[in-house]
Amino acid sequence: MKWPKNITIKEVGPRDGLQNEKDFISTEDKISLINQLSASGLKSIEITSFVNPKWIPTLSDATAVATGITKVPGVTYTALVPNQKGLERAFEANVDEVAVFMSTSETHNLKNINKSISDTFPILRNLVQKTLAVGKPSRGYVSTVFGCPYEGPIDINEVIRVSETLFEMGINELSLGDTIGVANPKQVQELLEVFLKRFPADKLAMHFHDTRGTALANVLVSLEMGITTFDSSIGGLGGCPYAPGASGNVATDDLLYMLHGMEIHTGVDQKKLLSASQFIQKKIGRPLPSKSLQASTSQ
Amino acid sequence: MKWPKNITIKEVGPRDGLQNEKDFISTEDKISLINQLSASGLKSIEITSFVNPKWIPTLSDATAVATGITKVPGVTYTALVPNQKGLERAFEANVDEVAVFMSTSETHNLKNINKSISDTFPILRNLVQKTLAVGKPSRGYVSTVFGCPYEGPIDINEVIRVSETLFEMGINELSLGDTIGVANPKQVQELLEVFLKRFPADKLAMHFHDTRGTALANVLVSLEMGITTFDSSIGGLGGCPYAPGASGNVATDDLLYMLHGMEIHTGVDQKKLLSASQFIQKKIGRPLPSKSLQASTSQ
Repeated sequence: MKWPKNITIKEVGPRDGLQNEKDFISTEDKISLINQLSASGLKSIEITSFVNPKWIPTLSDATAVATGITKVPGVTYTALVPNQKGLERAFEANVDEVAVFMSTSETHNLKNINKSISDTFPILRNLVQKTLAVGKPSRGYVSTVFGCPYEGPIDINEVIRVSETLFEMGINELSLGDTIGVANPKQVQELLEVFLKRFPADKLAMHFHDTRGTALANVLVSLEMGITTFDSSIGGLGGCPYAPGASGNVATDDLLYMLHGMEIHTGVDQKKLLSASQFIQKKIGRPLPSKSLQASTSQ
Repeated sequence: MKWPKNITIKEVGPRDGLQNEKDFISTEDKISLINQLSASGLKSIEITSFVNPKWIPTLSDATAVATGITKVPGVTYTALVPNQKGLERAFEANVDEVAVFMSTSETHNLKNINKSISDTFPILRNLVQKTLAVGKPSRGYVSTVFGCPYEGPIDINEVIRVSETLFEMGINELSLGDTIGVANPKQVQELLEVFLKRFPADKLAMHFHDTRGTALANVLVSLEMGITTFDSSIGGLGGCPYAPGASGNVATDDLLYMLHGMEIHTGVDQKKLLSASQFIQKKIGRPLPSKSLQASTSQ
């Protein structure tokens, strides 16, 4: 097996992770977490989401977080943006990159964004092009790529259609999301075989949730296919607090453990990362899903 | 990537899992668990350990368990045996297969068995040969193959020496154990490249613990190398109750989820397996490490 020598990790914990927390994590703690992540050597951190605070109250301090962190040169600070209003707030807060999102499943898109897929396209196009106009890059998330909680398996042609449309809009990178953590390595291999004929590997990121424990195996098969960018979440943040083990994103801690063991370079200091993970676990007040984190704590 | 079409799962939860439980699980519940596992389609179940009850009081009912279960034709019921006394008890209880164990690390072997590696060999030889003499197969476990908590990395030549000695004794199958869950896919690949030149794939089983989340990725690379037998534990039993997330064996539930998703045949009914997992989780009274189990419970 051949694996890439260098991997880029895109840390999404402060956004994809914390948005699922019921309790409000203080702005100060969020800023401290992001500053610790910046100091760990991570080169890309999704710091918050400029959604309507009514939807996700726990991220209602997006502006305070984005303007309160100490930016480290060379690190890209990204924010999720759902609409024009969010884009304006993100620009005011001077984020480096805008992330837009939609689903490949009509039902999931409707439930999540309250619009059909075809009605979502012009909104995202506007966001991406306005971001380009101010000279900033944008990132596209497509969710439910490997299965939808309402529709089940998604036709790969629909995944391609949505992905191509996002690239045509001008996104710089596409993140393929296993939103509900159902993917297995065969599915990942089959999807990537098709995708890598259409899109260059360095424009694709894989975004695995670890709901059924398969995330690192899915990362491994993606590495073998030539993928070099992965989204992950500090401590495995993002699990539902009421379903122990029903994890969110693959834990950055576990991803690092595996990659560094395989002598794959990430540029991240594992010790500093683990310390940030211990910090946010303490603030959240329950054991986080990362197994490396728990193994380090129990030693 | 090429993966095998058929895989044998060796269920070790009733032994490797339950031996780590602080509280005594009743004999009746152990028997019920094993009977449910038998009914799930599993073809190999390690049911208990005939160690001195003083060492592992939680398995002090080994004879009652081994003689109380309903044996299903075609299923091999294995028991762990450390010495002559244990072997006699195992024979009396009429187990189908005897498992012997030792470490590739001198320090771990001393701490675990209270003997040097060279002093362990004649004991195991005696056990394996007496088992052969009564016409039964035996299985050898080598532990700390990918790293030892006391000695760190283990020289592969020492792993080979111990493995060859066990095969010479007459074991039918060797289970290579990542006892403390430190292995990564590169390490697994490198070890198997060497091992598969010396031993046939169908004589090797991989025994991964999921302490740092890498177990299924290690399974995946083993599949790619041609391994077709894996040890796993129902619910991921075997974690230390005082270290949440510090898991034991890879969970049979998660292994099945991945293999079946990849269209790899195991002969196991996933629904029945999950139901057995829910049963023992309830008896143990805390969430077990299996992520598929938790995902199924939270739905």
